[in-house]
Amino acid sequence: MFHIIDLVKTALSEDLGQGDITCHCLIPDHTIGKAQIIAKEEIILGGIDIAALVFHTLDPEITIEKCFNDGERISASEVIAILKGNLTDLLTGERVALNFLQHLSGIATLTHRFVDAVKDYKTKILDTRKTTPGMRTLEKYAVRVGGGNNHRFGLSDGFLIKDNHIRACGGITQALQRAKSNTPFTLKIEVEVKSLEEVEEALEAGAEIVMLDNMNLDSIEAAVSLIDKRAVIEVSGGVTLENVKEIARTGVDYISVGALTHSARAVDISMELMEAVS
Amino acid sequence: MFHIIDLVKTALSEDLGQGDITCHCLIPDHTIGKAQIIAKEEIILGGIDIAALVFHTLDPEITIEKCFNDGERISASEVIAILKGNLTDLLTGERVALNFLQHLSGIATLTHRFVDAVKDYKTKILDTRKTTPGMRTLEKYAVRVGGGNNHRFGLSDGFLIKDNHIRACGGITQALQRAKSNTPFTLKIEVEVKSLEEVEEALEAGAEIVMLDNMNLDSIEAAVSLIDKRAVIEVSGGVTLENVKEIARTGVDYISVGALTHSARAVDISMELMEAVS
Amino acid sequence: MFHIIDLVKTALSEDLGQGDITCHCLIPDHTIGKAQIIAKEEIILGGIDIAALVFHTLDPEITIEKCFNDGERISASEVIAILKGNLTDLLTGERVALNFLQHLSGIATLTHRFVDAVKDYKTKILDTRKTTPGMRTLEKYAVRVGGGNNHRFGLSDGFLIKDNHIRACGGITQALQRAKSNTPFTLKIEVEVKSLEEVEEALEAGAEIVMLDNMNLDSIEAAVSLIDKRAVIEVSGGVTLENVKEIARTGVDYISVGALTHSARAVDISMELMEAVS
Amino acid sequence: MFHIIDLVKTALSEDLGQGDITCHCLIPDHTIGKAQIIAKEEIILGGIDIAALVFHTLDPEITIEKCFNDGERISASEVIAILKGNLTDLLTGERVALNFLQHLSGIATLTHRFVDAVKDYKTKILDTRKTTPGMRTLEKYAVRVGGGNNHRFGLSDGFLIKDNHIRACGGITQALQRAKSNTPFTLKIEVEVKSLEEVEEALEAGAEIVMLDNMNLDSIEAAVSLIDKRAVIEVSGGVTLENVKEIARTGVDYISVGALTHSARAVDISMELMEAVS
Amino acid sequence: MFHIIDLVKTALSEDLGQGDITCHCLIPDHTIGKAQIIAKEEIILGGIDIAALVFHTLDPEITIEKCFNDGERISASEVIAILKGNLTDLLTGERVALNFLQHLSGIATLTHRFVDAVKDYKTKILDTRKTTPGMRTLEKYAVRVGGGNNHRFGLSDGFLIKDNHIRACGGITQALQRAKSNTPFTLKIEVEVKSLEEVEEALEAGAEIVMLDNMNLDSIEAAVSLIDKRAVIEVSGGVTLENVKEIARTGVDYISVGALTHSARAVDISMELMEAVS
Amino acid sequence: MFHIIDLVKTALSEDLGQGDITCHCLIPDHTIGKAQIIAKEEIILGGIDIAALVFHTLDPEITIEKCFNDGERISASEVIAILKGNLTDLLTGERVALNFLQHLSGIATLTHRFVDAVKDYKTKILDTRKTTPGMRTLEKYAVRVGGGNNHRFGLSDGFLIKDNHIRACGGITQALQRAKSNTPFTLKIEVEVKSLEEVEEALEAGAEIVMLDNMNLDSIEAAVSLIDKRAVIEVSGGVTLENVKEIARTGVDYISVGALTHSARAVDISMELMEAVS
Repeated sequence: MFHIIDLVKTALSEDLGQGDITCHCLIPDHTIGKAQIIAKEEIILGGIDIAALVFHTLDPEITIEKCFNDGERISASEVIAILKGNLTDLLTGERVALNFLQHLSGIATLTHRFVDAVKDYKTKILDTRKTTPGMRTLEKYAVRVGGGNNHRFGLSDGFLIKDNHIRACGGITQALQRAKSNTPFTLKIEVEVKSLEEVEEALEAGAEIVMLDNMNLDSIEAAVSLIDKRAVIEVSGGVTLENVKEIARTGVDYISVGALTHSARAVDISMELMEAVS
Repeated sequence: MFHIIDLVKTALSEDLGQGDITCHCLIPDHTIGKAQIIAKEEIILGGIDIAALVFHTLDPEITIEKCFNDGERISASEVIAILKGNLTDLLTGERVALNFLQHLSGIATLTHRFVDAVKDYKTKILDTRKTTPGMRTLEKYAVRVGGGNNHRFGLSDGFLIKDNHIRACGGITQALQRAKSNTPFTLKIEVEVKSLEEVEEALEAGAEIVMLDNMNLDSIEAAVSLIDKRAVIEVSGGVTLENVKEIARTGVDYISVGALTHSARAVDISMELMEAVS
Repeated sequence: MFHIIDLVKTALSEDLGQGDITCHCLIPDHTIGKAQIIAKEEIILGGIDIAALVFHTLDPEITIEKCFNDGERISASEVIAILKGNLTDLLTGERVALNFLQHLSGIATLTHRFVDAVKDYKTKILDTRKTTPGMRTLEKYAVRVGGGNNHRFGLSDGFLIKDNHIRACGGITQALQRAKSNTPFTLKIEVEVKSLEEVEEALEAGAEIVMLDNMNLDSIEAAVSLIDKRAVIEVSGGVTLENVKEIARTGVDYISVGALTHSARAVDISMELMEAVS
Repeated sequence: MFHIIDLVKTALSEDLGQGDITCHCLIPDHTIGKAQIIAKEEIILGGIDIAALVFHTLDPEITIEKCFNDGERISASEVIAILKGNLTDLLTGERVALNFLQHLSGIATLTHRFVDAVKDYKTKILDTRKTTPGMRTLEKYAVRVGGGNNHRFGLSDGFLIKDNHIRACGGITQALQRAKSNTPFTLKIEVEVKSLEEVEEALEAGAEIVMLDNMNLDSIEAAVSLIDKRAVIEVSGGVTLENVKEIARTGVDYISVGALTHSARAVDISMELMEAVS
Repeated sequence: MFHIIDLVKTALSEDLGQGDITCHCLIPDHTIGKAQIIAKEEIILGGIDIAALVFHTLDPEITIEKCFNDGERISASEVIAILKGNLTDLLTGERVALNFLQHLSGIATLTHRFVDAVKDYKTKILDTRKTTPGMRTLEKYAVRVGGGNNHRFGLSDGFLIKDNHIRACGGITQALQRAKSNTPFTLKIEVEVKSLEEVEEALEAGAEIVMLDNMNLDSIEAAVSLIDKRAVIEVSGGVTLENVKEIARTGVDYISVGALTHSARAVDISMELMEAVS
Repeated sequence: MFHIIDLVKTALSEDLGQGDITCHCLIPDHTIGKAQIIAKEEIILGGIDIAALVFHTLDPEITIEKCFNDGERISASEVIAILKGNLTDLLTGERVALNFLQHLSGIATLTHRFVDAVKDYKTKILDTRKTTPGMRTLEKYAVRVGGGNNHRFGLSDGFLIKDNHIRACGGITQALQRAKSNTPFTLKIEVEVKSLEEVEEALEAGAEIVMLDNMNLDSIEAAVSLIDKRAVIEVSGGVTLENVKEIARTGVDYISVGALTHSARAVDISMELMEAVS
């Protein structure tokens, strides 16, 4: 919570430096302005309250009238919000507010496409820890706004045995044995596997969640019937908008997609001044 | 400088939380490991020293042998760096280091494509202020690594009169008059224009840099000959890998591309454990 | 990790203020001293590396020779560690280092008594979130050092439905239904119950861990046979060194004790100057 | 002042991590709740405004009606305060607020017992620098709330020559000579002594305050008549609720008790939900 | 912006430490006071809003009625502002508020004298980077308040080639050549020169601003006619209230004066209690 | 201690912003330089270790050879220190290092003049709390370096009853009565008086230190004989280099001078590049 306020201040500081010299030179001090934030393409909105926080952090007297809430679909040219207040502060905050809004709405919009693609199945779309440094809380929030689910937040609130751990332990069975005797009792144990043999080994060693890593569709299908509900199933690696529906059709519980947070394109949103009164 | 160290700590804190429970449970305390960071596709490297800083912040005794430096082209499957040290610390730092590396190399790689596209012309590729909150210094660094140039860092080190300022001042001429009497004497004055009429007005009012905003190729060409070296020319808006060469051919000085920093896809880089000794 | 360094600096700042005026006035600048840290009663050591960090934060050139490690039993009058370095820095850091050491060893020592009391049973001793503000990481570490286990670290890495949640949801069944559809898939669901009826209801609604809150010994015994391994069992409330063995004998999996962190008495440890050379 | 706000944020951050997942899953967003904070044993209240600050830091719209102020005696089962506001925020702040309140009231309650024990004498009860790292300001405040007095806050606002200093200087006389020529002129000089001979030496060398360290009752009595009002007298070491009255009877000015801050038991206080309206 | 709030907190923390013990002992808690801030000599006011921020940071309920604004001339004995609020908070904040006010008004007053001395010429008075560590934003603000102009804020928003750079590059021409190919396109290039030969060399190599460093009046005059409007001219070094008018008379564009920020005498301002009501 | 490191980082951040663009453009990356810091007038050195800290914070590999230590007198043209290391880092740190050095040496030099003026008397020169915000620790250090003594550091380590307190209490006697019953027992009580009548009243009410505020020489003389060693005497207000000797001759114990910290002129010190090797 507090670190989001800090992030907003950091973002403002990095853009403002010693202040907006263009505005200070051109705009008389007490000019009041009215501006609108507009979607320039169809989007799922994400981050409108962060955008508002940017302006309020700069100037608590700016008023913001939201026309949409996070998670809603907005068509091109629709007005997202209307702002009123000191014109210099509106223009000074514009870029930082839009940077948050375009990035988070980009994630929400991309997530929504994946969620929509699998909507006929029980499968849920998950994010990963492949997030932009400093932005994880907000990016994972944007995934939820887009209809996705969050995998663990970080290294301390989920227990996930990956290939490097398995190599270090000398095998899946050895890794799971160590895990069984030590893991915090509030957590389920997840293991990454790369083949049907490993699926079998993981189940026998007591895995509660099995992550099928970079398997092709046939292997996934075989794994689902092999596991037969003895563990929760997550698919990871190589998932695209093109193949996600086929994967969901196999009956897996979760599909995780790194691109949601590390490669979503920023959507096009802009702010336009409507009037200015000195 | 100091804020990059802070950003690395923030990124580690957000991923580690109370610590990597999987490693603490599976890996004996004093296990030493050796791992390699590998490019999984062709990239221009960006951020290798930040990746190193991540590991050193976690554990100053980890050694990192760089096989490439930032700005170099790396083919798929090539080893980028080799790490040696406490295995738990290597695995704990992996994700954060890769998050920086994949994001910054993504920007460097995309920038390089634009720079390469215009390499036959004098035109330079510029970034914008459309950066990820908190990451501006690093993202602008990655643009340089990819061969691009930086526009102003933020609102206080460049004087740029945009459409909203012009609207607020009542016109380009009025805006430039105010600017002329007030601007810090170390800065050149740049104005955003949308038509040849505005180009004319900006030149007469004394603009030192003219930014042609969202103009089509014909208009850009006409603007270049109208300006006739009386001002520096920047083109902005709607620039893609497809059209950037055509724009450069017109003889403009700079082309700015927001996508370099807000929409570069993360490139694929991974870390693989080579050996572990308890 | 970084917040422990910050805590050490905070603790030093709050004690030093503008500096140790007594030392600055009495001790010549370059006097070298040797001092020993001594247990004045039998203890389980906790926090020796934090004590060392205090001195190193003040003066990286102080050397510390540890005679014991955390978790070891130390008799009254035994030397815990020997320090050498600038005398003013040794005396300036003394109180802060001892404050950490006495507090954390106090927790380790008390925890060890509980662990020892149940050593003939499979039951494990847990801490709670009843910790001193700012000290949670260290206090939970001291519990582990004393042989105890940690319950969840905070509100985001465990799912625990308590009486106030149940009241807000209108009952255990309703609360568990909501939990089932929403909980992060990596976490097990724990519910606090106060009677055998509630145990029954919790099991039927799918609880994975049942916390028996403030039940007497008879009820605990009845609950254990009612649950019959269908869920993990934690006992909480009213646990003392006097009754903990009786509770463990019933066969519960975990017993949590708030007093470990909120009411452990500081153990007696002091630092004595052995020699000083100007 | 500002560091107390920081401490509250730290305490909330350490408990909340990424947020209260139980509440977010179980409690509808806009549910309003009413809760009461109740004493479960007889206490002297300490820290009610810090508890309020915890809730206000989380959510400025929570209202808190105090039934008692710090320093007042509260019987078991009495209501300390009534809270109203967003239910998730009430439940999220509960543990942190109680951790402050139980710890500080524990100190106030224990201090009050010592103060009460010596109430027939002029002697005042003092705290020490044996405080929990990060909590000194609040713990010393709780001592005052319980009727005690504060010794120096830290190393820079009092001049106290202890055994290690004396050893380093080569004797009490030498230490006091150095002190006399150098001490800030706004401070009185206090010396720790262990015998009547040392008392004599300290007085002759000009000590303004004499601290009798770990002396038995007979020696204290002898010291009081030896000093004969030529210096202020503080007794320190080995003070308990059992012997404090006897010590006060000797006529010493101050008795300092480390246990006030380092070993006070947390008192039992809880928060109960009274109603919830979605 | 945020760093000024931090500076105010730092200044308060450094003065308050653990609080104003004199006020806490002498002034009953709820005493209300009224006080006035008075100029004890003729000044140009600078920093009144920072002084107000000091009091508001301490206690948001203190009211401050400003009789003057920054930049206005105030005669000796005139009232600058009237404060009302909790008396302890007024007296606690007094010194920090006055420290800001006396320092910044000192700079504004000295700047105004320089500005006034050249008022018959087009020449503008500039500050330098010779500021007090931590105070640059405020000190440069005070220069503007006094009628001066700001040179670059720091090393990243102006391009200034000084003697050490020239020496490192091997000459003015070489330095300017490197600068020409690399400098951010939004900045003008300034070069420091020490003789007419260097002026000539700088102009030929394309300098946009020429700084005449420590030249005597005759050389300055010769330089002005040599340059003949081909570059902007700044004079720096050895400027005093005695010679500034003569320098301005030569027709240079800017005169920079380090003393404005590094050696302005604090002006005399005090706060007087008018009434106190318990 | 830690806040000085923070201040150095703040000072560097405020000067560097996004980095020294002039150096980055002109100086090849790995150029090594040698430079000397030179006194341009006679000074008492203050802050050489802070200057070194500035360079080391920027680049730990810069070496600094000190030719003088703080407190030593240096003649014009003498070399203070010689630096060697990365040339860009040397030039980047130059201004911040000199800003500290010129300011602190300015204070040390001015203090030394006052101390020298009273060297034939027992009187000591004191500073005040009239310091530059954020710089108090260093400024008070510079006073000591110049041979002066420090008055209290801030509001919590000295007890000083000033005119506004007296007005609020209804008189000197009332103020001292309150003070007597409440003041921390480690502190002496100081009172500000303005006339011989007030001196008398203060003595009778038990003042331990009397501050004669803005009295003329005759009154000071009369006060000294009236007090007759019954209290420590401090003179404050209107003290200059011209009259300080006369005041000392009266036999007062301390003379405090606000100008030491709020109005000392920065002394002239510069850094010159001696050689550069790419």
